Amino acid sequence: MFVVCFDLEGVFTPEIWITVAEATGIDELKITTREEPNYDKLMKKRIELLRLNKINLKDIQTIISKMELLPGAEEFMGWIRSVAQVAVITDNYKEFLMPLLKKLGFPLCFHHQLEVDENGMISNYHLTTKDMKKKAVQFFRDMNYKVIAVGDSYNDIDMLKEAEHGILFKPPQNVIDEFPEFPVVNNYSDFKVILSNHLRIS
Amino acid sequence: MFVVCFDLEGVFTPEIWITVAEATGIDELKITTREEPNYDKLMKKRIELLRLNKINLKDIQTIISKMELLPGAEEFMGWIRSVAQVAVITDNYKEFLMPLLKKLGFPLCFHHQLEVDENGMISNYHLTTKDMKKKAVQFFRDMNYKVIAVGDSYNDIDMLKEAEHGILFKPPQNVIDEFPEFPVVNNYSDFKVILSNHLRIS
Repeated sequence: MFVVCFDLEGVFTPEIWITVAEATGIDELKITTREEPNYDKLMKKRIELLRLNKINLKDIQTIISKMELLPGAEEFMGWIRSVAQVAVITDNYKEFLMPLLKKLGFPLCFHHQLEVDENGMISNYHLTTKDMKKKAVQFFRDMNYKVIAVGDSYNDIDMLKEAEHGILFKPPQNVIDEFPEFPVVNNYSDFKVILSNHLRIS
Repeated sequence: MFVVCFDLEGVFTPEIWITVAEATGIDELKITTREEPNYDKLMKKRIELLRLNKINLKDIQTIISKMELLPGAEEFMGWIRSVAQVAVITDNYKEFLMPLLKKLGFPLCFHHQLEVDENGMISNYHLTTKDMKKKAVQFFRDMNYKVIAVGDSYNDIDMLKEAEHGILFKPPQNVIDEFPEFPVVNNYSDFKVILSNHLRIS
């Protein structure tokens, strides 16, 4: 029996911070862990930028509520849930995710959480747990499920390594080069083939 | 952040074995762990009865595919998924569950698995893991989620005890009497009130 653990952004949805950067015109919000590997510094920088530009949580939620899933994502999610158990595990925040999870039909989703001050400004962030993606895979394996993990970036690699099968979905070239052990798929149709193969269904 | 762990039968669907007993006319299939507390003996008895009556897995799947959710279950499931994470944890079997999970919109579901012989007859059963319900609650708590557990019978009690909040949904009187520490709800509307209270939403 299989559980498929998915990253969210890049697999089912566009990158949320990049969308927010584009919608607000704050280019610096495009910085990712690639440019700032210290996640705490990165998040504090983002929170500071939002404060300086007077963008509150509601403004961001309005932007996110207009985001669409990647083309084909909804159908693909419908299929995979009919043949395996599904968990979405994302390093993004509950307060950002709801409209996107709704469009995906509310799969189980592990995420982090934001703190908002009395003016509705994001003031801090709280990680649900350290190594959340890896821990989730370990749990499902402890429960005697086989795990297929799917992601597109560095923060997914531990999860992919911990799973029986790790798959990279549309990863950037540097991730492909650095982790040649993982198969790469670039669209849902090829993804379906490789998953069907693991699940032994046609 | 909350995960709500639900039992399936009695909460969202009618009892599957009882439905099968009624549809096939094999009254002995109505026996539960109340009459036969040894689960292994109970399952072997059920498998033997099906074999004697020449009922194969496909026959049972046909019966189950005609089952309806309990009235209001679909709407309730839609609501709870929009306000919390949801996991369904059942001591029933993957091969029986799919049509019912589909009607519920495929929430994450932990279940057990059947073995079927070359004639399509159920020949054995495999428990995914011992103490599955309790383990699932422990995992979600390890992940720093608060857990609300909901069930209707003896096999749910460990899960209810392990959770921050345990709730009995339409339990039989002996379960109410034996576990007075758990609040009892008898319909989705009261259930929604008590859950909203825990989740602090209105």
